[in-house]
Amino acid sequence: MRTAIYPGSFDPVTNGHLDVIERAAKLCDRLIVAVAVNRDKVPLFTVEEREGMICAACATFGNVTVTRFEGLLVNFARAHGAGAVVRGLRAVSDFEFEFQLAQMNNALAADVETLFMMTRPEWSYLSSRTVKEIAALGGAVADFVPAPVAQALARKFAERGETP
Amino acid sequence: MRTAIYPGSFDPVTNGHLDVIERAAKLCDRLIVAVAVNRDKVPLFTVEEREGMICAACATFGNVTVTRFEGLLVNFARAHGAGAVVRGLRAVSDFEFEFQLAQMNNALAADVETLFMMTRPEWSYLSSRTVKEIAALGGAVADFVPAPVAQALARKFAERGETP
Amino acid sequence: MRTAIYPGSFDPVTNGHLDVIERAAKLCDRLIVAVAVNRDKVPLFTVEEREGMICAACATFGNVTVTRFEGLLVNFARAHGAGAVVRGLRAVSDFEFEFQLAQMNNALAADVETLFMMTRPEWSYLSSRTVKEIAALGGAVADFVPAPVAQALARKFAERGETP
Amino acid sequence: MRTAIYPGSFDPVTNGHLDVIERAAKLCDRLIVAVAVNRDKVPLFTVEEREGMICAACATFGNVTVTRFEGLLVNFARAHGAGAVVRGLRAVSDFEFEFQLAQMNNALAADVETLFMMTRPEWSYLSSRTVKEIAALGGAVADFVPAPVAQALARKFAERGETP
Amino acid sequence: MRTAIYPGSFDPVTNGHLDVIERAAKLCDRLIVAVAVNRDKVPLFTVEEREGMICAACATFGNVTVTRFEGLLVNFARAHGAGAVVRGLRAVSDFEFEFQLAQMNNALAADVETLFMMTRPEWSYLSSRTVKEIAALGGAVADFVPAPVAQALARKFAERGETP
Amino acid sequence: MRTAIYPGSFDPVTNGHLDVIERAAKLCDRLIVAVAVNRDKVPLFTVEEREGMICAACATFGNVTVTRFEGLLVNFARAHGAGAVVRGLRAVSDFEFEFQLAQMNNALAADVETLFMMTRPEWSYLSSRTVKEIAALGGAVADFVPAPVAQALARKFAERGETP
Repeated sequence: MRTAIYPGSFDPVTNGHLDVIERAAKLCDRLIVAVAVNRDKVPLFTVEEREGMICAACATFGNVTVTRFEGLLVNFARAHGAGAVVRGLRAVSDFEFEFQLAQMNNALAADVETLFMMTRPEWSYLSSRTVKEIAALGGAVADFVPAPVAQALARKFAERGETP
Repeated sequence: MRTAIYPGSFDPVTNGHLDVIERAAKLCDRLIVAVAVNRDKVPLFTVEEREGMICAACATFGNVTVTRFEGLLVNFARAHGAGAVVRGLRAVSDFEFEFQLAQMNNALAADVETLFMMTRPEWSYLSSRTVKEIAALGGAVADFVPAPVAQALARKFAERGETP
Repeated sequence: MRTAIYPGSFDPVTNGHLDVIERAAKLCDRLIVAVAVNRDKVPLFTVEEREGMICAACATFGNVTVTRFEGLLVNFARAHGAGAVVRGLRAVSDFEFEFQLAQMNNALAADVETLFMMTRPEWSYLSSRTVKEIAALGGAVADFVPAPVAQALARKFAERGETP
Repeated sequence: MRTAIYPGSFDPVTNGHLDVIERAAKLCDRLIVAVAVNRDKVPLFTVEEREGMICAACATFGNVTVTRFEGLLVNFARAHGAGAVVRGLRAVSDFEFEFQLAQMNNALAADVETLFMMTRPEWSYLSSRTVKEIAALGGAVADFVPAPVAQALARKFAERGETP
Repeated sequence: MRTAIYPGSFDPVTNGHLDVIERAAKLCDRLIVAVAVNRDKVPLFTVEEREGMICAACATFGNVTVTRFEGLLVNFARAHGAGAVVRGLRAVSDFEFEFQLAQMNNALAADVETLFMMTRPEWSYLSSRTVKEIAALGGAVADFVPAPVAQALARKFAERGETP
Repeated sequence: MRTAIYPGSFDPVTNGHLDVIERAAKLCDRLIVAVAVNRDKVPLFTVEEREGMICAACATFGNVTVTRFEGLLVNFARAHGAGAVVRGLRAVSDFEFEFQLAQMNNALAADVETLFMMTRPEWSYLSSRTVKEIAALGGAVADFVPAPVAQALARKFAERGETP
């Protein structure tokens, strides 16, 4: 596996994402973490903030680069010469959605494979959404995200005046 | 089976829907494709456009009629003398939702049965939502919908200035 | 729907099976309940006993016939001019298995459709296997099967000296 | 089990919720039904209305109290000396979501257990959301919620001019 | 919750079982771990061995007793004045099976509730069956079961001459 | 990805397996198809026959080797310097089982990753077991397995006198 893509919203990156990045990076020559620029949904963090948090957390991985992407994932993969897309799987609802996405991408571009890695048990309940909900309610998220992300979450909700 | 109903949003109709229509039509005297008028969600296509695209695609099926419906599906079924509602099943998440819907409809009207047909494997990953997302990103959807639908999608996103 | 097949082991028939039979019989001109003769598994009841219990329970349904079958189901369906096979769905594990079976039968014979009906909530936990396990332990099964089947279960386990 | 919490939106309370309340109340000294005050979603009923409907329906249960909560559920549980949170489980999609929530709560507060009770088969298809959809379309919901809730739903949709 | 039952085969007890025992024991006055005597399946360990291993592992829990049971679980629960049966849930396939069992037990004895606890993430992949398979192949199971159980597994497979 | 393992029973190899082999081989330098020697189950084909059928079907893939293995898969992977195990995923029941297996293997050997590939839709209903059942009943399996496998199945069941 020469080049692989690990796409996502990463709003924000969690310890679960970082575990997948670390393990996937060992299996390929180059891993591109691709941050989705989604025009429809309003993310909590800007794409620059999201890229920055991943870069900081992945600084020690020599073969990981972080970039953003718009449009069809398969076009992005082809443009970067990537033969594989890596996805983490947590549970059945993930599986169903990921299955449809992988089959659709395969119908659009048969030369781009999707590879799935199981999330480690200790992160199996973790998602960016639940981390944001807990931080918004003033809960401690230091066990779930890198320290700079926990600080950024605290700042973001303090600005909004949402934390109790 | 005299009369059966095949309800849905059909926003827009896909090859997966058309496969269910063709197979269900062989099993009953009359199949009514019922396009849901939903006040809450804003569809991409108007109900007239959605009806028109199904009619065009089903022109050769002698016993298929296309109409719209509002209100409770079981009332619509009874008003048309239909003893069965046909639904396509793709995957587990479909199954859960459909199971709840069928049980609820059965509690409301025990004389209207819900019959499920499995989506053929080649369309199992297909949904109106993913087709719209791909078309919005400028991807080719000609393998997933009839030609007039593909053209209508291209026009719709060109109007909106969304395609890259 | 002219003729439909409802296949199964029916070892023994339960109230859940009878509910599917009653509802499916309303949707077709003729419903053939097809009792599987399986060479590998040793059933609790002989195929004659199983046919007899279904016949007794379905005596009042004018358009239901009971017969046995060996070999491929799709061949049996074609031999009887049946365009549809009816199956009851209880839960996700059923769904997965039934999905595979329906797709395989469709690959073997595209002219035989599989139609699924949801089991009513009150029978959703019921299976021939659990009924046999409860009867073997001396539990009351009168709420789950017709009276003659409950009696046959009691006799069968008394012969074997299994009931406490 | 001294004190247990049964949290939810209860927008509005259904017969399925009441069944869980009745059964859970038998297993603990005190059951606190905790109505979530959610700042993001706009509920159909105010938190006062939701509390009132549950109180009226639970008047005969001696050990059930109804209150509202904001913020993290585990903080609320600790503040009330509750060692257990009770949740009803209906189906697989419930299960996945509940599993993530329970694991996350356990990571936040290891001294608060989550206990799950299966919804009875006859309420397995029931949810506040489907009840609201049916009531909005003018369907009869008297079999699914207590009489005062059915009346409140009718009034609410009449005010909005939504019922046909 | 006065008395609760935690039933199972425990062939052998794993760290996942012990985690459920420890957490359930905190929620009730008395917890009875009930080892199933199953006439059909041949277990690896005798019922005496299985009881002994659980007793040794639970010696420090003051309110846990270990006993065996035959026949219907609901009869056993009633005979011991237990109002609740505790079960651990790991994954969807567990869920389906447990759902059917709980509903069936509820139909047999409405006064015996089934309560489910989620297995902690770190034991979510663990089962007696996989532990036996690994031990049979000479793999290390010290992380998955108490030390005396690991030794008993090693002895058992050495007797059989199965370990490589 | 230097070396990857694709383990299985392959009793016999199907077009679904061959599709996974072809796609996985493109992503690594060397793919070892590892045929499990299972002492407990009696396979239809001997391990020699199973290896032979895969070799014949993979003759044109330059970087695929076929071998057998006994004992723990992670030991086999380490002995061959393989950092990844490849598995095909078909459906939810697969997913649950595979998830447990992958987590257990990860607990035994953190340096061996499990990578999952989705089975293509057209093979999603296919399994060695259903192919054997159809062949045993005299059905045509030429669409599901390579021609030499179809012939071997016909011979095997003719020897046993099982085909009608």
